[in-house]
Amino acid sequence: MALARIARNGYRRSGSSAMANYANCEKDFISEDRCRSPIGGFFTHPHKNIPASGYTIRTLSNSNFGSRGIRTTPHYQFANAERVAESDSEYESTKYPTLEATKPGQKPRVVVLGSGWAACRFLKGIDTRLYDVVCISPRNHMVFTPLLASTCVGTLEFRSVVEPVTQIQTALANDPNSYFFLASCTGIDSDKHEVYCEAVGDDGLANAPYHFKVAYDKLVIASGAEALTFGIKGVKEHAFFLRDVTHAQDIRKRLLLNLMLCENPGISEEEKERLLHCVVIGGGPTGVEFSGELSDFIMRDVRQRYAHVKNYMKVTLIEANEILSSFDLGLRKYASKHLTKCGVRLVTGVVKEVHPNKIVLSDGSDVPYGLLVWSTGVGPSEFVKSLQFPKAPGGRIGVDEWLRVPTVEDVFALGDCAGFLEKPVLPALAQVAEREGKYLVEMLNRIGKQNGGKALSLKKDIPLGDPFVYKHLGSMASMGRYKALVDLRQSKDAEGISLAGFVSWFIWRSAYLTRVISWRNRFYVAINWATTLVFGRDNSRIG
Amino acid sequence: MALARIARNGYRRSGSSAMANYANCEKDFISEDRCRSPIGGFFTHPHKNIPASGYTIRTLSNSNFGSRGIRTTPHYQFANAERVAESDSEYESTKYPTLEATKPGQKPRVVVLGSGWAACRFLKGIDTRLYDVVCISPRNHMVFTPLLASTCVGTLEFRSVVEPVTQIQTALANDPNSYFFLASCTGIDSDKHEVYCEAVGDDGLANAPYHFKVAYDKLVIASGAEALTFGIKGVKEHAFFLRDVTHAQDIRKRLLLNLMLCENPGISEEEKERLLHCVVIGGGPTGVEFSGELSDFIMRDVRQRYAHVKNYMKVTLIEANEILSSFDLGLRKYASKHLTKCGVRLVTGVVKEVHPNKIVLSDGSDVPYGLLVWSTGVGPSEFVKSLQFPKAPGGRIGVDEWLRVPTVEDVFALGDCAGFLEKPVLPALAQVAEREGKYLVEMLNRIGKQNGGKALSLKKDIPLGDPFVYKHLGSMASMGRYKALVDLRQSKDAEGISLAGFVSWFIWRSAYLTRVISWRNRFYVAINWATTLVFGRDNSRIG
Repeated sequence: MALARIARNGYRRSGSSAMANYANCEKDFISEDRCRSPIGGFFTHPHKNIPASGYTIRTLSNSNFGSRGIRTTPHYQFANAERVAESDSEYESTKYPTLEATKPGQKPRVVVLGSGWAACRFLKGIDTRLYDVVCISPRNHMVFTPLLASTCVGTLEFRSVVEPVTQIQTALANDPNSYFFLASCTGIDSDKHEVYCEAVGDDGLANAPYHFKVAYDKLVIASGAEALTFGIKGVKEHAFFLRDVTHAQDIRKRLLLNLMLCENPGISEEEKERLLHCVVIGGGPTGVEFSGELSDFIMRDVRQRYAHVKNYMKVTLIEANEILSSFDLGLRKYASKHLTKCGVRLVTGVVKEVHPNKIVLSDGSDVPYGLLVWSTGVGPSEFVKSLQFPKAPGGRIGVDEWLRVPTVEDVFALGDCAGFLEKPVLPALAQVAEREGKYLVEMLNRIGKQNGGKALSLKKDIPLGDPFVYKHLGSMASMGRYKALVDLRQSKDAEGISLAGFVSWFIWRSAYLTRVISWRNRFYVAINWATTLVFGRDNSRIG
Repeated sequence: MALARIARNGYRRSGSSAMANYANCEKDFISEDRCRSPIGGFFTHPHKNIPASGYTIRTLSNSNFGSRGIRTTPHYQFANAERVAESDSEYESTKYPTLEATKPGQKPRVVVLGSGWAACRFLKGIDTRLYDVVCISPRNHMVFTPLLASTCVGTLEFRSVVEPVTQIQTALANDPNSYFFLASCTGIDSDKHEVYCEAVGDDGLANAPYHFKVAYDKLVIASGAEALTFGIKGVKEHAFFLRDVTHAQDIRKRLLLNLMLCENPGISEEEKERLLHCVVIGGGPTGVEFSGELSDFIMRDVRQRYAHVKNYMKVTLIEANEILSSFDLGLRKYASKHLTKCGVRLVTGVVKEVHPNKIVLSDGSDVPYGLLVWSTGVGPSEFVKSLQFPKAPGGRIGVDEWLRVPTVEDVFALGDCAGFLEKPVLPALAQVAEREGKYLVEMLNRIGKQNGGKALSLKKDIPLGDPFVYKHLGSMASMGRYKALVDLRQSKDAEGISLAGFVSWFIWRSAYLTRVISWRNRFYVAINWATTLVFGRDNSRIG
């Protein structure tokens, strides 16, 4: 029961994980002996009143349409939806509201789980003349993650890095049989071609928790990953992650609060130093960019606007090995030198425990902090762990070269939650996720045109086209103060162009400005940058 | 003990009040028989470990400098601050960190409580060559309240209506002896010339709750008022107020959440109608503007972006008497007609009880709702009620025509928390508060130039100048859809120009655009309006 509860909540929350040592870790922050092989997946029951043991899952889908729960007595409370009238398994003894399977003659339905890079690139490209589309995610927007670090200190507004899903694919809001559901997926029945969901914010409803089912013709799992904590005590309780806008909002509130707390009469020197000590764990691009933004914030804004406490503020970046380990050696050296020059203290160390006001390192030393940001890569979510699909190294959902989950029909997985079974797992990058979304949507549109969109219709021998091949275009990382790194090598060991400095910073800004999805946000990002330059960063603390 | 706790928290929270029937109610929403005369103030002890009965307050300040707690043994933990070394009353048996009284030769210190219209206008004008200034408020920014209703539906961004206090008066951040304290004031000792505070967000500190004292030469109380609930059951628990940015954020989140909840499979027709029924209580300018914005949001954005549920969304405005009762008769008629045309249902009624999903009116009828916004005027905060100063009708702090609290030295009150003792109490309007702030800061600057800034130095017969006279410039209210009202009459019964329609809407926008305090926000408000026109309102639900 406890496990079922965890799995049900896992998709919407950052959960801990005892996994590491797999190829898609952003970097190896922790010493090797902490890493363990992934735990096998388990299937959890979406409804807590029924024991999970009462249900047998078939991993190979060999059922016919009849078992997919198509009913001919529509329930008129909801267009195209009905409550299950009869039950053909113990699973269905509780009657869920259901978005029923599509009927012959109707468009096939693609269900997309998630609203990140992979999901949104897929949604953007789906041909809505061929498919009805349903997106299920606990978040109604996509976050433009490469610019998230900039919002923590007020360089950019939160709203400028957020894109509502229904703007990316307007059919979700307007087409009669396409929907966006603000919900967490709690389970998948690949045999029945159904997903089980729990609505988010359902305490506003009379019958909470509100569970429902959605039948699919094709299922695209792009539910992403979760921050890795390596099971270290206190991380989840006391550290901030930097993966969502709410995280950035919390970091900004804490930063500004600590600056103001230090002003209060009678705060000791020691307490001021602690409150204004910002510690970043993990020297990957996110950790480095956030440290750079922080140092820029201190050098420009804190000095001007917090004159009483400006000398107490310090930034420390703790990394087990080397910062930006995936970048070119020259760039790594440049980054270390630049960050140190900007006042960021680079420390090599491994975190042992996190307490409310201090970190204990594995060498026994204490590091007092006022703000702790944890950015040590990502691992599989509780939801992904709960799925009884084959797993790739690192606990991701295993896929073949066409992004199909091989043991079941009509299920695809992509982005940070998926990994190749027979090729090296790709890194958890926006670039990879976006490319996979583009590949898959083109494939499904092609299949749809050949009447392969309906459930189980791929048996008709429709060609899938070429397998997915990832070509790395390069990596970028900004470091504040008009400096950035651009590494155009295709892999860690390849030769290629790498740049550092102002030109890189200009490339970094231009590249992201053109990649921001909507014109509205492109405009706002440019305006935010301009006003930060003219008026300085925003330091209002709302909420 | 319970009372002390309420008073301590009252300043930062919207508290209920059993008071009504006083001149500065925004409007008489509730029938007369509900109104009672104000409860007499009581003094509460700022430190919960000491019984309030152990301390006797002298309302007439006749002490000399010696009793103001000046110490000659500074405590070097904090510039110009020290812990109280000795105790001369039971009040001081707990040693608070203290910002000590200014010494001869130092600039006098003005302490301002609050960060609303009155406080910020005062802060903006204070001559920092004459005074050190300390602002104490649980909010580090001023809210441009007339535009707050627009932020609830995404016409404007929250950040565009917010102005950090340290940007309004940069000395607070930069001058060595001026400070902004993010704290709630819990008590005033007008005899010792000290205020007692509790830091906000102090759970980040080792010794929370964090209390401290600040000595003043002049005290300006501009702590504002709180939303009136008339003691109606369930209002505080279930209704949203619309007085702060966090309120607007909560309203927006709920509105977007309800729109998305309705999409879920199996939601009944009745439940959809309830979830999308927005009820506004109170037909004053805030209630009317919010209703107008909502109807505009429904007509333009909901129809385009929530096609599945657009026909369920309704707005009802409930008012006991007449909407916009302070406006010209012609304008009132225009407003009623326009709102009705835009789909706002105007209902005359008195609320008896509020339940989680429905309101009960005094005629016994039930009104189911998904969003309830309460805007029935303001009354005194628990903090103001706790002060043992003379009170004006309605429980405000009583002041003379120079905005002085007459029974004590060096204490001034202005804005929504203050009312004349011998003249009619002015309405709780931004316009009044701003004018009072301007008047008082000019007076204190004048006094300061004549060496009257120090505590008790006004005995030297320095002329105060002319008393404060309020001249009403007129009222404005927008109603969405390019329509607004402009009433330029000086009082309810006077003759004068009144306008309604598109020209008024243009005047309304222009007037507020020029009155937004900083150039940064003036720019952003204009940009927000432009992007809303081009791209529609923002419907991302963050957090």
